[in-house]
Amino acid sequence: MITSFQVQTHNQQLVEISAQAGALLASAPSDSGLLTLFIRHTSASLIVQENADPSVQRDLINWMNRLVPENQAEFTHTMEGPDDMPAHIKSMLTQTSIAIPYQQRRLMLGTWQGVFLFEHRRGMHQRNVVAHL
Amino acid sequence: MITSFQVQTHNQQLVEISAQAGALLASAPSDSGLLTLFIRHTSASLIVQENADPSVQRDLINWMNRLVPENQAEFTHTMEGPDDMPAHIKSMLTQTSIAIPYQQRRLMLGTWQGVFLFEHRRGMHQRNVVAHL
Amino acid sequence: MITSFQVQTHNQQLVEISAQAGALLASAPSDSGLLTLFIRHTSASLIVQENADPSVQRDLINWMNRLVPENQAEFTHTMEGPDDMPAHIKSMLTQTSIAIPYQQRRLMLGTWQGVFLFEHRRGMHQRNVVAHL
Repeated sequence: MITSFQVQTHNQQLVEISAQAGALLASAPSDSGLLTLFIRHTSASLIVQENADPSVQRDLINWMNRLVPENQAEFTHTMEGPDDMPAHIKSMLTQTSIAIPYQQRRLMLGTWQGVFLFEHRRGMHQRNVVAHL
Repeated sequence: MITSFQVQTHNQQLVEISAQAGALLASAPSDSGLLTLFIRHTSASLIVQENADPSVQRDLINWMNRLVPENQAEFTHTMEGPDDMPAHIKSMLTQTSIAIPYQQRRLMLGTWQGVFLFEHRRGMHQRNVVAHL
Repeated sequence: MITSFQVQTHNQQLVEISAQAGALLASAPSDSGLLTLFIRHTSASLIVQENADPSVQRDLINWMNRLVPENQAEFTHTMEGPDDMPAHIKSMLTQTSIAIPYQQRRLMLGTWQGVFLFEHRRGMHQRNVVAHL
């Protein structure tokens, strides 16, 4: 079964989508299986990370910005703005697709795990996530 | 269903394999499902990235080379050449397997997305990609 | 079919789990298919890497430590120890889930490939890996 959902983002941020992903299981073809999420963009990505302490999310975003600063002299792809090429690099370093097993229509996430959409661009963006289950 | 295909590479490059991946769907067991690609190497990898502007691909390759320069004094695995250990690191930072949902026998890639084999080594290499669908 | 196994770790290390993963195929619902592994933690991760020469594993661990040193002044998530925030970053840069096709109940790994659990923390940890096949 294939479905999809939208995520509205605003600037660089980690948007937790665990609840949206988990809600898909109500209409899954069986009680247990594998949920695969695929993001249809190359300047936003998917990760599974700690969702308990928001300081983790802030540090992840800031570390990524230090690793991939804007306006590097070597960048030639600059016409879509200074945040675009860094966004592609950050997407490459994280995931376009992630798979999570589920049982009894519940995602088998660990105690501290959440599923996040990682927005790498500034401004408002509507992101489309396709789900296979 | 499991199948595979070969990709010939020449030096560090991003080889778009969207067409080869999409062509597999003609013989898929159903009209919609999930295509999973797995590369059987540890010095080349898979990514989904923008395929519209070639400058993105050039910048991705060059940024990776700046992040993981050759001939680092700390490297102990040097007997396969100066480009080998960086290739393993770049593979670790990208993907060995990626999953893409398909519908009506078409990959559900976003407008700007392409599937790429990322060759991290110099010289000619024949790379083997296994597909499950 | 969903199952799981435990991996005991001790300090930062790459623990090869190819044999444990391959052993699951004896009870797979069919002779060929896709094995997906999912690690239920955010400070340890999964990678497929070269398993022939142990110097590769040592260099991967050391390079990661140089890329993500402990005690960065910008880190705000520090209460779980100096190795915790670097562990989250290293997990983000590698994989939480990986998929490997299998045929005749054998993983279709390349000649030099092994599946590894990448422990990013110090101390003893029991890690839980869920498998879907």
